[in-house]
Order: sequence, then structure tokens, then C-alpha cells
Amino acid sequence: MKKIGVAILGLGTVGGGTYKILTSKKEKFINTFGTDVTVENVLEINDARIKQLNIDQSIVTKNIAEVVSNPAVDVVVEVIGGIEPAKTFIETALKHGKTVVSANKELIAKYWHEIEAVAKANDAGFYFEASCVGGVPVIRTLTESMQGNDILSIKGIINGTTNYILTKMSDEGLEFNDVLKDAQQKGYAEADPTADVDGFDAAYKLSILSSLAFNVKVPIEKVYREGIRNISKKDIEYGKEFGYELKLLAIGKRGENGIEARVHPTFIKQSHPLASVKESFNAVFITGDNVDDIMLYGKGAGDMPTASAIVSDILYSSGVAEHYYVPFVNDKNGNGVFNKDFSCKYYIRLTVKDKSGVLAQIAGVLGDNNVSIYQVIQKESLDGKAVIVVMTHTTFETAVKKAVEQLGGLKDVVEKVNALIRVE
Amino acid sequence: MKKIGVAILGLGTVGGGTYKILTSKKEKFINTFGTDVTVENVLEINDARIKQLNIDQSIVTKNIAEVVSNPAVDVVVEVIGGIEPAKTFIETALKHGKTVVSANKELIAKYWHEIEAVAKANDAGFYFEASCVGGVPVIRTLTESMQGNDILSIKGIINGTTNYILTKMSDEGLEFNDVLKDAQQKGYAEADPTADVDGFDAAYKLSILSSLAFNVKVPIEKVYREGIRNISKKDIEYGKEFGYELKLLAIGKRGENGIEARVHPTFIKQSHPLASVKESFNAVFITGDNVDDIMLYGKGAGDMPTASAIVSDILYSSGVAEHYYVPFVNDKNGNGVFNKDFSCKYYIRLTVKDKSGVLAQIAGVLGDNNVSIYQVIQKESLDGKAVIVVMTHTTFETAVKKAVEQLGGLKDVVEKVNALIRVE
Repeated sequence: MKKIGVAILGLGTVGGGTYKILTSKKEKFINTFGTDVTVENVLEINDARIKQLNIDQSIVTKNIAEVVSNPAVDVVVEVIGGIEPAKTFIETALKHGKTVVSANKELIAKYWHEIEAVAKANDAGFYFEASCVGGVPVIRTLTESMQGNDILSIKGIINGTTNYILTKMSDEGLEFNDVLKDAQQKGYAEADPTADVDGFDAAYKLSILSSLAFNVKVPIEKVYREGIRNISKKDIEYGKEFGYELKLLAIGKRGENGIEARVHPTFIKQSHPLASVKESFNAVFITGDNVDDIMLYGKGAGDMPTASAIVSDILYSSGVAEHYYVPFVNDKNGNGVFNKDFSCKYYIRLTVKDKSGVLAQIAGVLGDNNVSIYQVIQKESLDGKAVIVVMTHTTFETAVKKAVEQLGGLKDVVEKVNALIRVE
Repeated sequence: MKKIGVAILGLGTVGGGTYKILTSKKEKFINTFGTDVTVENVLEINDARIKQLNIDQSIVTKNIAEVVSNPAVDVVVEVIGGIEPAKTFIETALKHGKTVVSANKELIAKYWHEIEAVAKANDAGFYFEASCVGGVPVIRTLTESMQGNDILSIKGIINGTTNYILTKMSDEGLEFNDVLKDAQQKGYAEADPTADVDGFDAAYKLSILSSLAFNVKVPIEKVYREGIRNISKKDIEYGKEFGYELKLLAIGKRGENGIEARVHPTFIKQSHPLASVKESFNAVFITGDNVDDIMLYGKGAGDMPTASAIVSDILYSSGVAEHYYVPFVNDKNGNGVFNKDFSCKYYIRLTVKDKSGVLAQIAGVLGDNNVSIYQVIQKESLDGKAVIVVMTHTTFETAVKKAVEQLGGLKDVVEKVNALIRVE
């Protein structure tokens, strides 16, 4: 019988979930996979958690040296989160030839190259299905199911908190701040919601997923990032009239001018499968040149779904003939060809003085910047002011940004452009 | 550099697609996976196909003995379809220690046990991701991503032709026969549509998927099967009024009374992610006890998506430390515990004489059979006849079937019950 000894570093919700699955499914793993999986060590400084899970003190330690020198440990699960001590612990384990399974998206997005170098040098495995979209098998799909494809694009709703907020704003016509407050009270959003609502969490995941999809390490600094704080219910409402739903999308594309990776609020057609992904559910829509479109949908977070992904990595990693390292095609210095000046359609909302000639001025500025207009609609008119919505044809980001700045400077535009939202 | 020699048996659309991917992506596989994949043999009796794909005559053969005795061939791809000679060819290849990759759902559903026994005895691999739902990685998800779960249920739209027909019926208010004729003209349905519209194709796939999900070989004879020929646009219309969409669902469940596996037209809530799967797209909705709900969506058929799955099996199978055989828990004779008398909610439509007392008769028959009524609606009234729709609470299949038979015998019921549709 094959044996796998596991050490769990950190008994937070995901670590606890992993412990629960490994112990409750022990018999199943023996019967189904002929594999005896045993938790040999738990590293945790919080005694209350040890007690809560009723873990035998003999396997508990507060010292990483004890874990990595334990010959019974084959796989080290890192679910501490953050950069340190997680990074040091992971590298120490790899240096001892242990396979490491991690859910740490921030760490991987920032230090993948370093960690992988240590893994390679020690012929050790490094697996991280749980780092992206919880229990949804998006990494395994990219690496073990789409090999016969060049991936053309990835579009994902990969942050549950923001999708929950946008769903509430859309379905109930509420403003961002009100929904956020409610979500915080219900525990769906953190007290400090920055990582979620400003798109950091999604950007980490997109860095990982687009690196895997394109075999080009996409460093986190190359990911364009814009959160949902400035989204108004008005924009969601107007978008619907054009047939769009608003989502915080993470988009990775392989184009003629290089790889583009961006996280921003995005209007997508109501008929697109991603448009009906609601509440805190996640989904990733992947297009390959042979398989066409695939979508994977599920819970992107939560203790048990994420632990499910960790357990799948533990068993999967023990079944491979050789550990796999992503063959990044970046140059020696990590540089790849990235396209910062992406192109798409744009939704622009601005408030203007309600008088003749204003539309001509707007059209003039857009035209001067080669931004071609698809549609202009005057939405409201009150107190001598009018709300104008412009939908553009496909155009370049830099062109639109320049145009928006100039529009803000027009004397008949009240304040500045109210909203600039990308349309896919 | 790792080398994989491939033989393709059968150059139909999927075989041709596989050849195209393997030759066009040769460089990519070398650069990305460090693996040199070469098509060493093609077995095909139709010379036109060989010519069309511009295949070097030196690798073409019409003799399986030549393929299996070729030491350069590691993986044999069977894309002939049907039972013979596919079965003999596969078993011959396995006996020579070759890994076999197959897309043959009918063969696997009917002879999995036999083929797997040959594979095991010869330590040879047998892979069949392409047999179910084309390029959508549902098998890899079950085997390599959900190991930490007991699968509770699978619900799938796994036949593109019937989903196309039902979508047209639903969106355009057309009758089955008219849509079928149109689909046949457009090449979306076969001249003999039996395999699709009567649910055979979906039943084969469900046999495979539910066997994998539950580790219980679910023989094709244990799959309840009902097609969509008798679906009327009226039922789709009425279902919508209750908030339901009609789909041909393949359902596998692990329940207290054993495994149930069934393919039949099914009403599902319009808010369910499967309800918005339209046209010829497929989707499989899997529920695990830890990961909760996952849905995989994509093209369920077509030459390149299916070939994409075959290519993924070729590369995946060459990366495993040991071939995996499903540890079925059936007894020696292949028997498992199957639940034929499943339970769900039911939609019943019947036409009755429009006079007082009829509803009481219907309610009486249903009550006598322990079928509890959730709602009764009189939909139409014309020429002294009325159309009645009954929605039941959850009840047993045998009870409903008995009740429906008795209802048909009531003298105030015109002919017999017009429609009996399950509701999930």
C-alpha cells in the first residue's frame, strides 16, 4: 500500500478543513486509491485550535525544523498565508525534498520564480491548485486537460466578495457603500475590504492563471488593476439597458502585441455564461484554439472547498512520474512581452451643461483621439445638467484615457468624466 | 527528452482532428512539456482520408498487427467507434502493453469491465476523457480534482443535439418534429436521430460518469432512459410559467437506497446554472460533500474539442507514475446496490371532460397512490375539454407511474395522461 505522510502548517479555516478531510476520508483513500494518508505533523502556535480539532499532542509542533526533519512527512501543506514565515517554511521544506502544497496566492504571485527554483534544484514538487478559485479545478484543467491547445484567453470572476457586492447592487439597485456595510456585517466582506474590493486578490490569482495559460510568467506588477469602489448603481442600470451585466473580471489574453492581464469592472453581454454567475460564486471562462470555450464554475473560497483542492493536490502529486515545473518562456531577467495598451470597447458616463453644442464638443475630443463612437445617449436632464452615456467602438486604452482627461477639461463638462468602464 | 509514439486507429473527424493537433503542436509539446510526440502509425482503410490529411504513406497501415508490433508506438488512439473491430483492436493493443486512449462511449459503457481486466493484466493504461462531453474535462475533474469528496450527485446536459432541439423549442415555441427536421437539414442531428433523441448517447455517458463518481460500475442496463420525442411545446410553455426550463438531464445520485442513474426530460428551476446552458453546449453539475457545487461547461462534441481531450489523455497518461484503474466496489458478479424506485417531483398534464367533480376524481387517484399534490392548475378550456396540470410534492417513481395508469382509466380523462415530466 502506498503511504503519504502529511504535515499541515497552520490550522486556520483551510488548514482545519484539510485536517478534517484527511482524517474523515482515511478509509476511503485506502479503499479507493490504495493509499494510506496520515497527518504526521501539525505546526500551529494557537493551542485552542489544536484542542478544537481534538488533535493528538504527539504530532503537534511549533518548530518547522521538526517537521522537515521528520522522515515520515512526504508532503508539507502550507496554509499560513502571507509572505513570512510562509516563504521560509516552504523553501525549507523543498530543500528537504518534501513536496509542498500551498494555497498562498499572494506568495506565489510575488515569489513563484524563487520558490520554483528551489523546488527544481531539490527535485521537489510544488502544487497550488487551492491558490486560485477554491475547489474549482482551474489549474488542473490548464495543466492536465488543455495541453493540446494554445490558450487564447481567460476571463474570470475570481473574487467572491466583489461578485456578491455587484450582484446585490445589480439585483436590488443598491449603492456600493451600503452593500459593503451589509456584507461586512454578515461576514461576507472583511473589516478591511481592500484586498477584495480593490482587486488585489483577483490580480494575484490572474497573475498565476495567466502565467500557466501562456507559459509566460506574468508578474503581479504587469497586471492592470482597478477595483469596484467607484461603481455607481446608475452605471449598472444604464449598462443593463444596453444589454450588459457588470462584473469584476480578471482577463488574460495572448495577443499580437504580447500578453495582457487586467482586473477591472467590465460590462459583459447578458447572454454570456459569466453574466449569470451570481452571489459569491466564481467562474473561469477559458478559450483554447482547439477546445473552443470551456467554463468552470463553483465556490471560489470557503474552508472545505479550498481544503478539497489541497487534498486533491496531495493525492495528485503522489501519482505523477515526475514533478512538473512550468516552462516559462520569459528571458533570463524574467521579462516577457506584455501589452499594456490593450484595446476594448468603453462605456463613458459624463455630466454636461444642458445646452446645444456640447455633444459636438465631446464628439470632437473623442475623434481627435481616434476614439470612434458607437452610440451616444442622453439619459437624464435636470437643473440644466444632462447625463450623457457614450459607447465606443473597440479602441486603445491609452487613447481613451487621454480623451477622458481632455473631456474633463471641457468647460461644459461638469467636474470630470463620471465613469469609464470597459466592455468585453 | 521524453518521447511518445502514437498510433491513430480511424481517421474520421476526431481521428483527423487528433492527427492535426499532434502534428501542428509538435514544437509546442517539445518546448512546453519536454516531450516529443510523433504519430508513428495511422490505421485507416479509406485512402481518401489519408490523402486529404497529406499523411506520409510509410506510416499508414490497414493491419492492426503491424501497429501493435511497432516498438515505436507507446499509445494507441481508438477513434473508430462502435463495438467491433474497436474492442478487439483495443484489447490487442493492451495485450501488447500499449496505453490505449479511446473516445468510444458505447464500447466503454458496455464492456468497461472486460477491457479494464485486460489492461490490468498487462499493466497497460486505458484512458477515455474524450468519451464524455468532448473537450470538457469532466473525467479528469472526477479522478484528479475531487478525490477528497464523496460525490453526492451529478446532473448533466451531456447531449448537444437534444439540447439544441429543446433550446429551439423553448426559445421559438416550435414543436419537436419541426425542429428535428430543421436540425437534420443543418447537420446538427443525424438522419437516424435515435441515439441522440431517445437518450442512448446520454445514457452511455452517464453510465461512465456515474461509475467514476461513485466507484460503482453502473451498467448501461441500470440506467433509466427516456428521450425527448414526446415533449410538446405546450409542456415547455407551462413549465416556464412555474419557473422551470426543460432539459434532457442525465442524473446520477448516491442515495440511502443505492445508486440511481437516469436520463429523462427534466424541469429545472430557471435560476439553476444548468438552465442557461443553451444550444448544443453541454454542462455537468457535480456536487461533492466538501467542494459543494462545481459546474463544467463547454462544447460536448465536435472534431477539435474531442481531439483536444484525446491529446490531453496522451500527454497525461505518459506523466503518471502508475496507471490507475477504477476500484469498483461491485461484488464479484458486478452487482451493486441500485435504486430503481427513485423519487422526485412530477409534472403531470392531462385533458379531462370540463365538468364538475373531475378534479376530485384526479385528487382521489393520486391520494390513493400516496402522491401528494403541490399545485393544480386548469390551463385551457375548449370544446367541453379542459387541460389540467398537476405538480406533485416529492414522491416515488413507481407510485406516480401507477397513479398515471389509473388516471388514464378514469372515464372523464380524455385518452390518457398527456405528459409526465420529472422535476428536479
